[in-house]
Amino acid sequence: MQERSQKTRSLIQKAALKLFAKNGFDATGVAEVCKAAGVSKGSFYHHYGAKQDVFIDLLETWVAELEAELRQTMASSRNVPEAIAAIASKTKKIFKDSDGTFHIFLEFWSQASHDPVVWKKTVAPYARFLALFEGVVQRGIDEGSLKPVNAKFVSRVLISLALGIIAQGLFMPKGEPWDVLARESIEYFIKGIVKEP
Amino acid sequence: MQERSQKTRSLIQKAALKLFAKNGFDATGVAEVCKAAGVSKGSFYHHYGAKQDVFIDLLETWVAELEAELRQTMASSRNVPEAIAAIASKTKKIFKDSDGTFHIFLEFWSQASHDPVVWKKTVAPYARFLALFEGVVQRGIDEGSLKPVNAKFVSRVLISLALGIIAQGLFMPKGEPWDVLARESIEYFIKGIVKEP
Repeated sequence: MQERSQKTRSLIQKAALKLFAKNGFDATGVAEVCKAAGVSKGSFYHHYGAKQDVFIDLLETWVAELEAELRQTMASSRNVPEAIAAIASKTKKIFKDSDGTFHIFLEFWSQASHDPVVWKKTVAPYARFLALFEGVVQRGIDEGSLKPVNAKFVSRVLISLALGIIAQGLFMPKGEPWDVLARESIEYFIKGIVKEP
Repeated sequence: MQERSQKTRSLIQKAALKLFAKNGFDATGVAEVCKAAGVSKGSFYHHYGAKQDVFIDLLETWVAELEAELRQTMASSRNVPEAIAAIASKTKKIFKDSDGTFHIFLEFWSQASHDPVVWKKTVAPYARFLALFEGVVQRGIDEGSLKPVNAKFVSRVLISLALGIIAQGLFMPKGEPWDVLARESIEYFIKGIVKEP
């Protein structure tokens, strides 16, 4: 039963992600999500109070996955500059956006900017994400691989750069080789703060 | 008559900007825009074929204003690094976002990502905007104030950085002093490419 319930939840998540990314949050109805997921409305409301809750659930899942991937990359790198380079080299995967995850991300942003409930629920995971990156840069300073920069400033610049490139990549996927720009610009920036041996 | 027509158009633009920014494009109806603008539906459809056209009109106005401001800043600066610093110092104004212009910007992005018609109409002004910035950097190289960098790369990095910071500033206005981050990160980046005298 537990397993079946988890499967239903996952079906709803997948269908909602696809529809939100394709048509937007506002234009997508619960009935449509249920139909695409192949679940009843009763099942839907057993898992979620409202359409908005699926949205928040998707965001939380996304941040959790990102965190896990970040920790794994950190664990398998010799130092912080190497870890950041490894993260930057993964951008190709992001821009493929095969499942619409990054389109939904833009949708989150837009929703949160005019919906105080969504906003409140998205601020906490976002702040956690910022703190996580700040910790990565601080670790680089502590281990002596990065110059004694302002960890907060540097982490915010890197995130802003990545976000700005992702947003443009979503907007005009074939406009530029965005994955190359992401990798090269992060490398360029890191070069300026790496401590020479 | 011409003047009155222009005034009506301007009333529709202002009302639509406010409502789109507050509630989103999808959630805003033409009737609501007309009511807020104090114009009849007949007047509305005299100026615009559909709600989407107001949206595109707002984007085009916004890009045109940005272009004009950029050209003016360039004209009143002694060289390109000075002009870029002047642009960066104006970010405080952007983050105040008193009229919702930048919220609507996020909405454009989101709409364009799942509406091919909006997308097609927004790509051209955006490409013009990218080319304009690339020209600014190229001019800096030509006048000898910037190192012989890759103008396209540098302009894309600067725009990405600015976009990423603006997006976050819209998302959590009180989360960080975003205007300071914008100014300092652009200054930091420029410092690395300015040609020493």
